[in-house]
Amino acid sequence: MQYSIGIDLGGTDIKAGLLTADGKLSCRIVVSTRVNEGAKAIAARIAQTIQQVIKTAESDRSDDIRQKIIGIGLGAPGLIIAGSGIIHFSPNFPGWTDIPLLNYISAELDGLSIPLYIDNDVNVMVLGELHHGAGIGYENVVALTLGTGVGGGVVINRKVYHGSWNTAGELGHTVVQPNGRQCGCGNHGCLEAYAGARHIVERTQQQITEGQKTCLKPQGLTPKRIAQAASAGDALAQEIFSETGRYIGVALTSIAHILNPQIAIIGGGIAAAGEALLFQHIRSEFAKRAMDIPRKMEIVPAKLGNNAGLVGAAMLPYTDQ
Amino acid sequence: MQYSIGIDLGGTDIKAGLLTADGKLSCRIVVSTRVNEGAKAIAARIAQTIQQVIKTAESDRSDDIRQKIIGIGLGAPGLIIAGSGIIHFSPNFPGWTDIPLLNYISAELDGLSIPLYIDNDVNVMVLGELHHGAGIGYENVVALTLGTGVGGGVVINRKVYHGSWNTAGELGHTVVQPNGRQCGCGNHGCLEAYAGARHIVERTQQQITEGQKTCLKPQGLTPKRIAQAASAGDALAQEIFSETGRYIGVALTSIAHILNPQIAIIGGGIAAAGEALLFQHIRSEFAKRAMDIPRKMEIVPAKLGNNAGLVGAAMLPYTDQ
Repeated sequence: MQYSIGIDLGGTDIKAGLLTADGKLSCRIVVSTRVNEGAKAIAARIAQTIQQVIKTAESDRSDDIRQKIIGIGLGAPGLIIAGSGIIHFSPNFPGWTDIPLLNYISAELDGLSIPLYIDNDVNVMVLGELHHGAGIGYENVVALTLGTGVGGGVVINRKVYHGSWNTAGELGHTVVQPNGRQCGCGNHGCLEAYAGARHIVERTQQQITEGQKTCLKPQGLTPKRIAQAASAGDALAQEIFSETGRYIGVALTSIAHILNPQIAIIGGGIAAAGEALLFQHIRSEFAKRAMDIPRKMEIVPAKLGNNAGLVGAAMLPYTDQ
Repeated sequence: MQYSIGIDLGGTDIKAGLLTADGKLSCRIVVSTRVNEGAKAIAARIAQTIQQVIKTAESDRSDDIRQKIIGIGLGAPGLIIAGSGIIHFSPNFPGWTDIPLLNYISAELDGLSIPLYIDNDVNVMVLGELHHGAGIGYENVVALTLGTGVGGGVVINRKVYHGSWNTAGELGHTVVQPNGRQCGCGNHGCLEAYAGARHIVERTQQQITEGQKTCLKPQGLTPKRIAQAASAGDALAQEIFSETGRYIGVALTSIAHILNPQIAIIGGGIAAAGEALLFQHIRSEFAKRAMDIPRKMEIVPAKLGNNAGLVGAAMLPYTDQ
């Protein structure tokens, strides 16, 4: 049996776990990131967490797991320079510029000589779904993560495609309405400006302010509350999700015409709104717009949920990215 | 010296020529396609044209060129099944379904045993620009051809990317205005519905009908006439090209965010409008919208003009597509 370790480095928590070659995750550990302590302290904490996962695994299995770990993969938000181990910048780690995080971690690993790999958190999520989730058996895959922002990833011939300067797959910044809402990136009418959490809330608040009938209050709104209201039959909340789905369908039409993937996998908190509130609107908009052959692209929910990042990070050592 | 032969199969003409390994085109021959005679007759005419190119080349150079031709490449409109030599369907050849054109041609080549290759005409144009035009030295390239329709091609790591079902690179069907003009494909607001020749003419006619001041008459309009009026200072004609450029900039923003290419090459008859009328509007819209890093993508005119198809077809034998 071979093993690998996955690390999901977020602004709040560091999550880690052990993955078997057949995709079983165990020995899950969560520690606080403590961003303000800086990159070297965080690297040391990641190294400790790795040692902890190995110890836990060995005590669980009375087996020399250390010898059977082929690599350690790390997913982190921001722009990662593929193959270099460097975080160019990251919105969650203010002030980090060209941080050689893998070198920092290696230096703290106390002679434990296991290769380290790193990629962007969304690419890593896509890799998890590709190998152990909704993407099993597909060659050419795109994935969207609907959260605070709208992330994306592109897989070509079962490899994550990084593009010329490591920024391919920014599917959340596909233009869906050229004179539309302003996006965090500065552009107008990106998919994220409709399907990102903050924008879903703002669109709802705007409709309430304009006097649309609804059970929702403009204060304390979250996509989850809007989804609950929609499930309970609130027409405004339903229309918000329907419109979100239609814009995702518009973006997927462009993506399918440009890339002709076999499948689009959609995950993230907002995708939890599910089939009736969201996915059926995505699919019907896409079916109405896409051309005959690219329209064969399947549109499915992600399967791995919160574990996609950990599983995907642990897949980095197996893939020649 | 090595040679290859390129064939550009169009609805009106069959063009053929001899290409040297360093990209020099000679022995150019043009014959009528005569679509109504059917696939086998056209295949026979292509075979004759190939023999003709070889004869001309040998009489020009008193050299046994026949032995030095490494392959024959053919570009044709429509959906080509990559690697199979089959035209699945083609708008220019009504009734053709799954035509094994390369087999038909081989059968007519009278024992001349040179490998044959085929790809879509736009992919072939991209290949020409990649190897001997504006794409020299680039790895990841997208190309647009602005003609009757808006064609596109995607090059990844110096190979044309065909996608899952041979329909990748349909860049003309990137959505730029979700509730916009109806496109020939049935969708609303594709780039082609703004930048295709017929649509440029229709947009202009509509403005004239609505009473916009212009020197143009609604009858007999062509993109060329509109470009001439724009060059002569006609404000409506200038705005038509400016808007066309802005929509191309919107599409390139989505494409750059999805694929992160190094360069976008824009060719076809309408691109002849040039820098002041068209390209500056494309570039400024793109610069306004694209994110920091993908914005480094260059936007340049195609270099090979009408020869791109022939040169690119002749490059098919050199490339492992």
